[in-house]
Amino acid sequence: MKEIETLWSEVRDLSLGYSGRVERVNSPLTPLQFLRDFVSQNKPCIISNAINHWPALSCWTDDTHLIRALSSVSVSLHLTPNGRADALAPFNPHHGFAFNSASSSSTEASTTAATSLCFASAHVERVPFPEALSLISSGSRDRASIPKFVAYAQQQNDCFRLEYSALASDCDPHIQWATEALGCLPEAVNLWIGNQHSETSFHKDHYENLYAVVTGEKHFLLLPPTDVHRLYIKEYPAANYSYSWVTGEFTLELENPIRYVPWCSVDPYPSPETKDDEMSKFPLYVNGPAPFECTIKAGEILYLPSMWFHHVRQSPDERGRTIAVNYWYDMQFDIKYAYFNFLQSLHYQSTLNSTLHEDSDSDADSGPYV
Amino acid sequence: MKEIETLWSEVRDLSLGYSGRVERVNSPLTPLQFLRDFVSQNKPCIISNAINHWPALSCWTDDTHLIRALSSVSVSLHLTPNGRADALAPFNPHHGFAFNSASSSSTEASTTAATSLCFASAHVERVPFPEALSLISSGSRDRASIPKFVAYAQQQNDCFRLEYSALASDCDPHIQWATEALGCLPEAVNLWIGNQHSETSFHKDHYENLYAVVTGEKHFLLLPPTDVHRLYIKEYPAANYSYSWVTGEFTLELENPIRYVPWCSVDPYPSPETKDDEMSKFPLYVNGPAPFECTIKAGEILYLPSMWFHHVRQSPDERGRTIAVNYWYDMQFDIKYAYFNFLQSLHYQSTLNSTLHEDSDSDADSGPYV
Repeated sequence: MKEIETLWSEVRDLSLGYSGRVERVNSPLTPLQFLRDFVSQNKPCIISNAINHWPALSCWTDDTHLIRALSSVSVSLHLTPNGRADALAPFNPHHGFAFNSASSSSTEASTTAATSLCFASAHVERVPFPEALSLISSGSRDRASIPKFVAYAQQQNDCFRLEYSALASDCDPHIQWATEALGCLPEAVNLWIGNQHSETSFHKDHYENLYAVVTGEKHFLLLPPTDVHRLYIKEYPAANYSYSWVTGEFTLELENPIRYVPWCSVDPYPSPETKDDEMSKFPLYVNGPAPFECTIKAGEILYLPSMWFHHVRQSPDERGRTIAVNYWYDMQFDIKYAYFNFLQSLHYQSTLNSTLHEDSDSDADSGPYV
Repeated sequence: MKEIETLWSEVRDLSLGYSGRVERVNSPLTPLQFLRDFVSQNKPCIISNAINHWPALSCWTDDTHLIRALSSVSVSLHLTPNGRADALAPFNPHHGFAFNSASSSSTEASTTAATSLCFASAHVERVPFPEALSLISSGSRDRASIPKFVAYAQQQNDCFRLEYSALASDCDPHIQWATEALGCLPEAVNLWIGNQHSETSFHKDHYENLYAVVTGEKHFLLLPPTDVHRLYIKEYPAANYSYSWVTGEFTLELENPIRYVPWCSVDPYPSPETKDDEMSKFPLYVNGPAPFECTIKAGEILYLPSMWFHHVRQSPDERGRTIAVNYWYDMQFDIKYAYFNFLQSLHYQSTLNSTLHEDSDSDADSGPYV
């Protein structure tokens, strides 16, 4: 269906450009500018100098302030063997299996074409904040040797206003010009404290997202909603990691009863060993226009428009951490969203083969993609 | 392709509603409200009490002021036999033909299935304003007998700021909150003086449109861009009316060399005689959701979003006239526009048969529709 490929081009011709670069502005936007030039057009941008006044920019770069503020608070710590939570992982379809960190490289996760994939969620544990911070930072430093796990303090449930309320005065409670533009306060504000081993696989959110980096850097790959077929969204069975502090091992078990999660199949950074295989499985991704690529530095905000697919990696500061705060504002479910759903509902020939929960043309209800 | 019909429903489910009514607000919008709730969502609205301060509201309801201001000005007067300019009309494909007003009812225009249709533009003549006003008003009163023609003073070339500059102080030069929202002044401001016999066939414009009625009423039928296939856009050969003041007859001649204009085939108000035929030709129009229907009264503004299909009729004031001023602002050619072009590029089975310039599946370049 060449019309879909024309759409990928046209949205770049008209609005986004082909440079693969995200537009940058050097000061906070007015609400009207933000609405007119970015939200209404569903177009990302990077805003510099928008959080210069946040105390967090200086006081979150050393441990003293954070630990004092949160000395008696427990926070949600996400543990995975390899930094990939909410991501595809290989599993044995017949039973859960031990997943030792020593054998958990992402390489192995996709070497065998016959391996079944699941949608793996992290082991989540409430941990006293000082300990969580230490686990994140030491994970950053120790990774050259074999680490036990990758720790990521985050919880996408408004955690900045809940678990981290002691830090409230270090940041703005909302982004003033975004709030005025969108006509509402954020639905959720989330804090993310991780190191360079955590990455977030391609997905989209049903929110307008203002993503502010406080220390370290975040590296985004972005694809517009028009490119939905290029990500080979398929349904994968949900599974959960469990970590044993005694054995230092992870197990990964399918949820029971089984639950399917639609998720992007494309890994934009496959290991050298799996690259050829990945490229042959995802020709629409490989051969289409390159994703928009940007690095958000400390002090910058990314406006990540609703429904845009994004993949995130991070670089730590000198203490081994990346800290960011993101503001999720309700999106409008308007004609753009209706168009997206229409596009997604169209079948598009792909060459993805999976042994797992394969959609078929005769079973349109099982998922929108084949 | 049931996905397209789902799109028609979903845009109503999510954003527009099924009532067929356009949202009304009772005072001028703020720029942010206008952008957020209507422009960004590509959603129409009617704004009352937005032009209460215009002198035009009182001084355009009698002739004295208008004639004094424009006594020595010539204006563009559009003449048609039946009030339908920029509309489909029957023609004899072998030669131009005399089109006498006495035999020019729209009924006859579409009774014969074998009749070829063209895209007919009005005879346009520069006429001293006082004479133009008299021809429009007398046309309104005399229509019960057989009129010579229907006159409509309009020209979509920024005519309010050109031909009618003497009236500039009677209205605002732009709509303040729209200008702030859209970040630019209007590209064109047009004046429309007509009577109840003029109507505008379904079409769309590539502008954000603020349409203010000063006297009389305008009756709109609106369909969102998602419904493009329901209007059976086809290419019709362009033709032009010529009126002879001597014989009182119109001729309608194809342009030479021939030029094709894509235009909506659906007439939403067919005569009783042709109604069955029209309904059978346009099942997607007839059987899909009803158009949004609204009447804009004197003192009200319609926000008509870019790319919305609209059909317009009018009711005169007691002097036999409808006068309106519309402001065309540049639209954003963004992801919404890219989605529209994608949708329009998809073939959709329709039952329209035409003997004229029929597209075929094997000739995709000749036009997007079959």
